[in-house]
Amino acid sequence: MPTTPHIERHFTSSEIVRDIVIGMSDGLTVPFALAAGLTGAVDSTSLIVTAGLAEIAAGSIAMGLGGYLAGKTDVEHYAMERAREVEETEKLPDREREEVADIFRSYGLNDAAVTQVVAAISRDQQQWVDFMMHFELGLEAPNPSRALASAFTIALSYIAGGLIPLAPYMLLPSANQALIVSVVVTLIALAIFGYVKGQFTVARPLRSALQTVIVGGLAATAAFAIARAIG
Amino acid sequence: MPTTPHIERHFTSSEIVRDIVIGMSDGLTVPFALAAGLTGAVDSTSLIVTAGLAEIAAGSIAMGLGGYLAGKTDVEHYAMERAREVEETEKLPDREREEVADIFRSYGLNDAAVTQVVAAISRDQQQWVDFMMHFELGLEAPNPSRALASAFTIALSYIAGGLIPLAPYMLLPSANQALIVSVVVTLIALAIFGYVKGQFTVARPLRSALQTVIVGGLAATAAFAIARAIG
Repeated sequence: MPTTPHIERHFTSSEIVRDIVIGMSDGLTVPFALAAGLTGAVDSTSLIVTAGLAEIAAGSIAMGLGGYLAGKTDVEHYAMERAREVEETEKLPDREREEVADIFRSYGLNDAAVTQVVAAISRDQQQWVDFMMHFELGLEAPNPSRALASAFTIALSYIAGGLIPLAPYMLLPSANQALIVSVVVTLIALAIFGYVKGQFTVARPLRSALQTVIVGGLAATAAFAIARAIG
Repeated sequence: MPTTPHIERHFTSSEIVRDIVIGMSDGLTVPFALAAGLTGAVDSTSLIVTAGLAEIAAGSIAMGLGGYLAGKTDVEHYAMERAREVEETEKLPDREREEVADIFRSYGLNDAAVTQVVAAISRDQQQWVDFMMHFELGLEAPNPSRALASAFTIALSYIAGGLIPLAPYMLLPSANQALIVSVVVTLIALAIFGYVKGQFTVARPLRSALQTVIVGGLAATAAFAIARAIG
């Protein structure tokens, strides 16, 4: 199906951007909040670093493999729905033709035009099924080779995001000192990340930066409060 | 646009199912892996419970608010793209008509039919823009009230998932004992979760159960290995 160049660019970049956003927004937030929370309960930086790295390992694997399996599931889901449409065009061709006709009637075509369009689309089965997949089900054929690239992009973005809040605990001797540096560094990183993310989505980068900082801040505050309450 | 009942049901349930899957797959995996990892480094169950609860607080807030903001962004992104299409139909109507024509030519309609279809669709601007949004951009109008429900579904699923692996550490005095019970209980929970998830997506529940168990097991093993190596 032909699309204009500005739209193709928009969608190609958004797949990678989406994966980076998925990995980095959690990577910057959860290890940051966990480390902040543990600082409320213990004063050993080595324990906080251990917990933080364990979390980064778990989170990056869980999210990366999760992204991989989601990509694979999309491919299979598309194939399954497509097989069902193929079967329906074979077993219930009249009902499927009627579905195509309904779509065009809903756009205000008169009966003569509808009949002509339905005949043209249903002439070739491949083309007919393509039409139903795209128009009736709103499904696009997913790229089967995306799943693996997606997994690595998500996992590496999670690791990159998670090491930022953890670095101060690795470098400074006191957990309380490290917490202050970690909060400052991570809020700046969240603001930059939110700003860049905002430019790709709704073109309101400043508000996006503010939102990202608030999410990270709230998560860290809640983790800190809970850990201090129990710890 | 009319759709057949089985498809509508499919898509309505899949929004809530998707949110539960997002929250629970991470909730079952990351706190499980973190607790297992910390058992490799410390022997105090109270510290593991503190870290686990801090992680659940951070993770549920980060993912819930993340889901909320993603929902809001979808609504705004749709509105922005729609405004752009409205503008294009006003400023460049011939180019937009040509885009509609290209779509139908790609489905094998002859020139006379294409002219008639394009005229019918572009007669009403609202309808014309609806067509471009759906067909050219593949965008559906998102439900603005979904964002909040989505946020709570994700957060509560994360909390529910996260408390399962953590419960043994709350109930048993020894971290090593708790780890064994946590591994058994969580792998069973992951298998049930994967099985149910598989029935909603690709109708291969057993394989889905196996995949979910492998992801959780790998994440926990990696977290355990890293924590033991440093701790």
